Amino acid sequence: MPEEPNDPEPPQEASIIATVLAHCPPLGRHRPPVHPAAVPGDDAALIQAGQVVTVDIMVEGVHWDRRCEAEDVGAKLVAVNASDIAAMGCRPTWALLGLSLPASIPRAWVDAFARGLGAGLARCGAVLVGGDTTGSTGPITLSLTMAGQAGTGQGDPVIARSGARPDQDIWVSGTLGAAAAGFFDDDPAGLAWWRRPEPPLELGPRLAQAGLASAMMDLSDGLSADLARLCAASGLGAQVDPSLLPLHESLDPQDPRALSQAVAFGEDYQLLFTASPAARDELLDLGRSLGLRLTRIGQTTARTALLFGQQGWPAPLFSHFPEPGVPR
Amino acid sequence: MPEEPNDPEPPQEASIIATVLAHCPPLGRHRPPVHPAAVPGDDAALIQAGQVVTVDIMVEGVHWDRRCEAEDVGAKLVAVNASDIAAMGCRPTWALLGLSLPASIPRAWVDAFARGLGAGLARCGAVLVGGDTTGSTGPITLSLTMAGQAGTGQGDPVIARSGARPDQDIWVSGTLGAAAAGFFDDDPAGLAWWRRPEPPLELGPRLAQAGLASAMMDLSDGLSADLARLCAASGLGAQVDPSLLPLHESLDPQDPRALSQAVAFGEDYQLLFTASPAARDELLDLGRSLGLRLTRIGQTTARTALLFGQQGWPAPLFSHFPEPGVPR
Repeated sequence: MPEEPNDPEPPQEASIIATVLAHCPPLGRHRPPVHPAAVPGDDAALIQAGQVVTVDIMVEGVHWDRRCEAEDVGAKLVAVNASDIAAMGCRPTWALLGLSLPASIPRAWVDAFARGLGAGLARCGAVLVGGDTTGSTGPITLSLTMAGQAGTGQGDPVIARSGARPDQDIWVSGTLGAAAAGFFDDDPAGLAWWRRPEPPLELGPRLAQAGLASAMMDLSDGLSADLARLCAASGLGAQVDPSLLPLHESLDPQDPRALSQAVAFGEDYQLLFTASPAARDELLDLGRSLGLRLTRIGQTTARTALLFGQQGWPAPLFSHFPEPGVPR
Repeated sequence: MPEEPNDPEPPQEASIIATVLAHCPPLGRHRPPVHPAAVPGDDAALIQAGQVVTVDIMVEGVHWDRRCEAEDVGAKLVAVNASDIAAMGCRPTWALLGLSLPASIPRAWVDAFARGLGAGLARCGAVLVGGDTTGSTGPITLSLTMAGQAGTGQGDPVIARSGARPDQDIWVSGTLGAAAAGFFDDDPAGLAWWRRPEPPLELGPRLAQAGLASAMMDLSDGLSADLARLCAASGLGAQVDPSLLPLHESLDPQDPRALSQAVAFGEDYQLLFTASPAARDELLDLGRSLGLRLTRIGQTTARTALLFGQQGWPAPLFSHFPEPGVPR
C-alpha cells in the first residue's frame, strides 16, 4: 500500500536492495554463524560449507507473456534457479515453491504449470519439500527457493563472483542472444530457449571440482550488466572483443541489433567465468566432454574500466523497472 | 496467463497443492537424501537433521490493507515465518527475501518496509543472506524464505504435526482472536496484533528441548482449520471444550461472534500443541518462566471426529480463495 502514490522517483532495483540491506542485521550476528563468505550479491548465498540457497521470482506479464504455455513457465521457474545454483559450482538439492494466484486461475493452468515444474525438478535432481499458496488480486506471481550442494562432501569449493584476478581469460558457455532473438523477433529457436531455457547445469560443478574457474556467475541479465557485476565483485576491469562473442545462430552478425541482443537483453542462462590462461586446453577438453561450446571472449584487467572493443557497450534492452519507451 | 479465463471452477488451495505435489519427483529421489521425516505439510520442511526451512507470501490487499504501515508489513513478514520455524521447535537462522514491486513504489515505502524487516530479523536472530527483486504490474507481493535450527546441535528434536497420540492434552499459548477483533472491529489492541504479531518464539524450542510436546504447529489459519490439520497428520480426532478457550480481552464472551473470531479467522500466531497429561505441571512451570499463558483446551481422541463442545465449529471467516460474500 504505497504511502505516497505520486512519489516522482520510483526506486530502482539496486537502490531497493541497498535500502533493505542497510536496515538488516549484519551477517556476523548469525547464530549459528553463517559462512564468512556469505554475502548478498552472488547468484546464491553460502549458508554452510558447500551449501548455497537462492530465490527467483517470475511475474506474469513481466517475465512471461501469452507466447509461453503454463508448462513452460513451470519448467523455466526451475531452470532459472538451477542456473544460479550451478553458477556457484553446486548441484540442486531441494526447493520451496511460492504461488500467488488470482482466484480465477483455471485448473488447467495449475495442472500444466505443475507438470513443467515437476519435469524441471526431475531434470535437475531437486525435490520440492514445501511451499506457500495464496490468492492475489494481481498477476500470477511465482517464487522458487532452491538449495544446492557443492561436490559430494561439505568441503568442496563454491565459486563466487569475487575471485577473478587480473589478466585472466573471460569465458562464456554456449551462445548468446537466443532469448533476445525469440523475444523481439519471434525466431522459433530463440523463442524455444526464451520459453524453456536449458542451462548447462553440469558445467558449473565440473569447473568447481576441477578448480578451473576463479570467478563465475550465470548470464541472466545480459553480458554487459553481468560482467560489470563480476568485475565489481572482483575489483577489476575487463576487455571484451565483440568479434569473439558466440552469437546464437538466430542472430545475423550483419544486423546492427545483433550485438545488443547478444549482450544487453539477458535470459541466456549460460555461464560467465574467469580462468587462468594456463587452463585453456583443459577447459576446451572439458567443454568437448560435456558437448558444450566454451568461448574465450576477452581478458580481465587490473584497470577497472570495462571495454567492449573500440565501441561502447550497447544500451540495455530490458528492465523490470523500465523507463518509458523501453520494451519489456 | 490463464488459458481458460472463464473456467467455472477455480481450484482451491488444497487442490493446488495436491496438483503440484502429484507432478513433482518423490522425496526419496533427493541427492543428498532429504531427511525421511521431510514431508510437505508441516509448518516448515526438515531438510537435514535439526534443520528446517519455510516460505510465506504476503500480498497487498490480501494479507494487509491501508490500516498497516509499511514498517508493520516488514515486521509481520518476518514474524509469520519465524512463527513457523518456532512451531517446529527451532530457532531462525537465515532468510531470503523476494520482492515484487510496482514501478510506482515510493522510496518511503521501501525504506519503512526495510526498517520493519530489519527490526523483525534482529528480534528473532536471523540474518538476510540474499533475495530477488522484480517489477510487477500488480500489488506488492512479498515472500520470505526462512531457515531454522533445532537446539544447539544437529541431533536435537524437531516437532512435527504428526506425533500426537490419543488421550493427550491439547494446549494453546497466549490468547485467541486478537487479530480477528482488530480486523473486523478495529479494536486497538487487536489491530496492533494483526498489524504486527509477536509470536512466542522461545516457547517452541523450549518445548522441543524439554521433550514436552508430541505434536506442534502455529495457529495461522484459526484453531478450527489448524487443529483439523494436526489431527489429520496424527491420524486421530479431538474434543475441544469451547468454555476453556483463552479469548483475547477484546472479545466479549457474550457476543455470539466471539467464538467465530477466536477459532475461525486466524493470524493468532500462537502455538497449538499436544502433550501427555503427565506433563501438565511442567508445562505450567515453563509457561510461567517465559511469562506466557498456556491453556489446556481439550483432549485428542482415537476416534477421528473433531468435536467442539455440543455445538459445531464456527464457519471460516477468511479464505484466500473466497466464496462470494465471505469477508476478506
